[in-house]
Amino acid sequence: MFMSCGGSEERVLPKIGVISSGRGENLRHILKAVQSGYLKARVVIVLANQPDAGALQIAREYGVASEFIDPAGSSRQEYDQILLERLGIANVDLVVLTGYMRLLSPAFISRYKNRILNIHPALLPSFKGVDAFSQALQYGVCWTGTTIHIVDEDMDSGPIVYQVPVPVRPDDTRETLKARIQRTEYRAYPRAIKMFLEGRPRLEGRRLLIDRPDTVL
Amino acid sequence: MFMSCGGSEERVLPKIGVISSGRGENLRHILKAVQSGYLKARVVIVLANQPDAGALQIAREYGVASEFIDPAGSSRQEYDQILLERLGIANVDLVVLTGYMRLLSPAFISRYKNRILNIHPALLPSFKGVDAFSQALQYGVCWTGTTIHIVDEDMDSGPIVYQVPVPVRPDDTRETLKARIQRTEYRAYPRAIKMFLEGRPRLEGRRLLIDRPDTVL
Repeated sequence: MFMSCGGSEERVLPKIGVISSGRGENLRHILKAVQSGYLKARVVIVLANQPDAGALQIAREYGVASEFIDPAGSSRQEYDQILLERLGIANVDLVVLTGYMRLLSPAFISRYKNRILNIHPALLPSFKGVDAFSQALQYGVCWTGTTIHIVDEDMDSGPIVYQVPVPVRPDDTRETLKARIQRTEYRAYPRAIKMFLEGRPRLEGRRLLIDRPDTVL
Repeated sequence: MFMSCGGSEERVLPKIGVISSGRGENLRHILKAVQSGYLKARVVIVLANQPDAGALQIAREYGVASEFIDPAGSSRQEYDQILLERLGIANVDLVVLTGYMRLLSPAFISRYKNRILNIHPALLPSFKGVDAFSQALQYGVCWTGTTIHIVDEDMDSGPIVYQVPVPVRPDDTRETLKARIQRTEYRAYPRAIKMFLEGRPRLEGRRLLIDRPDTVL
């Protein structure tokens, strides 16, 4: 789908920028999927708002440019302008959030409209917001899951790219449920990114139609 | 689990009363499950608020007492008192709603507290209320499903007994999605009733712990 004409293939691969607050395990699995050739893309920059974010270390392991951007003393708008500057220099096509615990400003979202993905540990629209694991346990659902969605102006509300249901066991604690959902995420996020990049996504209202992975060559 | 000591087994089987507004296909599958011996219970009465409800015809086919209770001219409270009277005479242990399109009054719910089941065509808490099929399509989820839950004072809000996820296909219309969910309901409702009757349900907050069907003898 991304044909090169005599030049290096790298030049035409879509470029991904990752923003993270967390351990970076999703980033690791995205990088593995790139390395294996499953994900025909390049991760060109990793940004984090925590100096000790695991994502920064993982980026270094994989030789990806990474930077801690200190949020101290800047407004959300100012902070997001710094992020946009870094992503712009790296010429990013797609922004991927992995455990990024801040809301992006409208200016950021409009700059990458329909080109920002996030992952949420529940079957949206159920259990938006923080600690979706405890929310699911307290509600008493038999199934929760993971959702990869486009980021829009509201929290956990954009069009859905891909979802995977995950069962809740009777003896689940927050930790066992969280571990089961996270294991699903590690497969789901690379797959969703692949679908999004190769599956000709098109919106009908807020419903995202996309070619399924088993039909993507 | 429901042992008889020399007497007829029928005497100790739990008695189910069904209230319906609709076609009654869920009732048909519940009756089939009783007939096959899968569901160790008796359906003793079927009540409907529509004179042409398919449920009344199906009840007659299976030799179950049935009655159309005309809602015209009575308040919800008065109407529910009539339902309670009929269920009381039939000595019902468990009330099962199949497509009953009215909210039950607090007096009704308190009389059968934690002994009223309903089925909703979505993975609650997503897509409460009417036309959950269109809600799911418009939101653009990849998975919806069916939920059997205990009825409490609020709409589609009680503790969950059993859920089954159902995929949404890219080419789904409301009708194809509805048909797929309904096929799931026909298996799920008898199974949920069996779990509820035999699985020693106990509440922890609003989380219902219940023995799973594969561990129910």
